[in-house]
Amino acid sequence: MKAKIHVTLKQGVLDPQGKAVQNALGSLGFSGVESVRQGKYIEIDLNETDAELAKGAVEGMCQKLLANTVIENYSIEIAD
Amino acid sequence: MKAKIHVTLKQGVLDPQGKAVQNALGSLGFSGVESVRQGKYIEIDLNETDAELAKGAVEGMCQKLLANTVIENYSIEIAD
Repeated sequence: MKAKIHVTLKQGVLDPQGKAVQNALGSLGFSGVESVRQGKYIEIDLNETDAELAKGAVEGMCQKLLANTVIENYSIEIAD
Repeated sequence: MKAKIHVTLKQGVLDPQGKAVQNALGSLGFSGVESVRQGKYIEIDLNETDAELAKGAVEGMCQKLLANTVIENYSIEIAD
């Protein structure tokens, strides 16, 4: 099974990386950009055939390693 | 409009960051992880009401700044 994980900063947490991208887009002449937020996208291949078990394992990975749950949210999608 | 952009390494390009995550997951006792690939996830708020125009603009941003098209693929989703 494949797990697709998005890790994003929580609302209200400053995102200097996103701000830098926004400024760079402005310098390059792209107008109309109101905000940019940058997160992480992680794809994990698991040798697990049960979607529920896979989701549980990935949930643990997010809690322990992939996301800093103080400032970040994560979402998990399980695909075949 | 909101644009959601995924930037991922092309097939065959080494991903040391993903490899490091994979090793760390192994050390933490998560077994059954076959591979990990890490990419970027970027959300952009645009003050543009036409989805086609928004997509065109974001395509330009990806080509010029957000993705290194030599080694990275990108995909764009436009939402309201």
